[in-house]
Amino acid sequence: MDEFELIRRYFDRANTRADVVVGIGDDGAVVVPTPAMQQVSVIDTMVEGVHFPQHFNPADVGYRAVAVNLSDIAAMGATPRWMTLALSMPVADAEWLALFAEGLHTAAAEFDVALIGGDTTRAPVTVVTVQVSGEVRHGTALLRSGAKAGDTIYVTGTLGDSAAGLQGLEAGRPVKELLSRYARPSARVNYGRSLIGHASAAIDISDGLYGDLSKLLAASGVGAELDLDALPISRSLAEHFDAADCRSFALTGGDDYELCFTAPGRLPDPGILTVTAIGKVTEARDIVCTENGRPVPFSDSGYAHFKSAGA
Amino acid sequence: MDEFELIRRYFDRANTRADVVVGIGDDGAVVVPTPAMQQVSVIDTMVEGVHFPQHFNPADVGYRAVAVNLSDIAAMGATPRWMTLALSMPVADAEWLALFAEGLHTAAAEFDVALIGGDTTRAPVTVVTVQVSGEVRHGTALLRSGAKAGDTIYVTGTLGDSAAGLQGLEAGRPVKELLSRYARPSARVNYGRSLIGHASAAIDISDGLYGDLSKLLAASGVGAELDLDALPISRSLAEHFDAADCRSFALTGGDDYELCFTAPGRLPDPGILTVTAIGKVTEARDIVCTENGRPVPFSDSGYAHFKSAGA
Repeated sequence: MDEFELIRRYFDRANTRADVVVGIGDDGAVVVPTPAMQQVSVIDTMVEGVHFPQHFNPADVGYRAVAVNLSDIAAMGATPRWMTLALSMPVADAEWLALFAEGLHTAAAEFDVALIGGDTTRAPVTVVTVQVSGEVRHGTALLRSGAKAGDTIYVTGTLGDSAAGLQGLEAGRPVKELLSRYARPSARVNYGRSLIGHASAAIDISDGLYGDLSKLLAASGVGAELDLDALPISRSLAEHFDAADCRSFALTGGDDYELCFTAPGRLPDPGILTVTAIGKVTEARDIVCTENGRPVPFSDSGYAHFKSAGA
Repeated sequence: MDEFELIRRYFDRANTRADVVVGIGDDGAVVVPTPAMQQVSVIDTMVEGVHFPQHFNPADVGYRAVAVNLSDIAAMGATPRWMTLALSMPVADAEWLALFAEGLHTAAAEFDVALIGGDTTRAPVTVVTVQVSGEVRHGTALLRSGAKAGDTIYVTGTLGDSAAGLQGLEAGRPVKELLSRYARPSARVNYGRSLIGHASAAIDISDGLYGDLSKLLAASGVGAELDLDALPISRSLAEHFDAADCRSFALTGGDDYELCFTAPGRLPDPGILTVTAIGKVTEARDIVCTENGRPVPFSDSGYAHFKSAGA
């Protein structure tokens, strides 16, 4: 089977969006942007053995590849519309592809995103790149740079589950509820969209709360007081790890795909989603962590892909 | 150096396009689509050792990664606007990155395309994925599916140089003029755009004329008579290879990034670009090759990435 048949067999499904004029199968896809909307574009790569374990469930790889991009779309307050896929792998494994496509289409269908094009190539290792385009009303996109001293800092959901789930898997003691947060992250698209007009700045948590909050603060030219006692820890995480490990997973574990945002006033109704105030934006350009109301030392730079490369 | 510094240092240049509201550095990029235009999206991956030789000039890798995508944009008759980059590599090699970025920005500047976002990750092998968005007036995009019996079949430029150039390099006898066609393909963006209203169907030649013409014909539900004597062969190719090899490179070599298109009537002025009539569209659903006006046997399926995978 050659790559063209592959693409058709696994990825070319009927378009569900009326704004897709030409989907998979031509030199390019053609879509109709919504009038008066700005367009948001995100792209994210996952490499086997680096961003997900070898022999990981292909359906989860497919789901995750879409979800991590939708999380970026959510952090911009945008509505996802269309996506393209670049998939490289050593051999055209039909079973792997069928499962991967199933997971990919499941995530896409949940958020009404159309797969409009792609490229399938051979490579020594499996590399999945997904690019998603979304839309947002003119001038309303949530940026990292709008936080002001005095704003409250919030996070959605609970933190640390995903990293703990992955660690459990790698240690041969997988905990289902935690691992599912890693395998099937919940992109906070609806809540992200509702934050427009409320949040002053937003970022999604992919590298760990501490590192990603640092980026938001740096982009805004401000600092923060971060209340470590307030970090939202799931019951499941607390059951399996002691308090220090829970905090460490929550602060620096990463792969949460929750939103961290700042807001000066009231928040929109999060429905069944938990939203937790974890600190305040300050004028000083650093993060002061507090425990029982007292400053405690902390430093971390999040997960850096090239940290050990010595470059 | 971590990936975030990397991205900033090598890829984050001042935006040259006024329609880029937010570029590199936030969760997503924000751009302003032109009113009443449809959007064309293409994505293409190049893997070291598969799509370009190991230790290939990084500046050429960067240029090529953009150019092959612009060629797809050209085949749609669209105007390129914005691009995103997903770059995976084993180590953050500063020298490689500087050269790669230089080539990438050179190609982007030639066609006024803004790099608006990206993702830089670690992988055991270098994998470059570029996604380009372009625009085209409502309903005018050139598709593969519009060829009609009686239309003339054309190609731009000359064919086979690129594949011959690569073969020469791999054999240790590089021919500069041929290799430059491989290293720095000329995306036919301006001519592709001018073909709107003239061409009935178009495709870009990446896998070889025979294979790509076959795809155009299949999409249109037609066949062709292909005049092998008419294939445009460069002086440089003819100097270094005999007639049979020239023809083989031209038909199935690939990596030409020229346009193959069909048209029922007159063509727009190609300026200094050569455009050659190479055959006619027929009703029969196959390709009949002719030599000296007589049918000759030929069959080929182009370059298929997974051909040897046995899947």
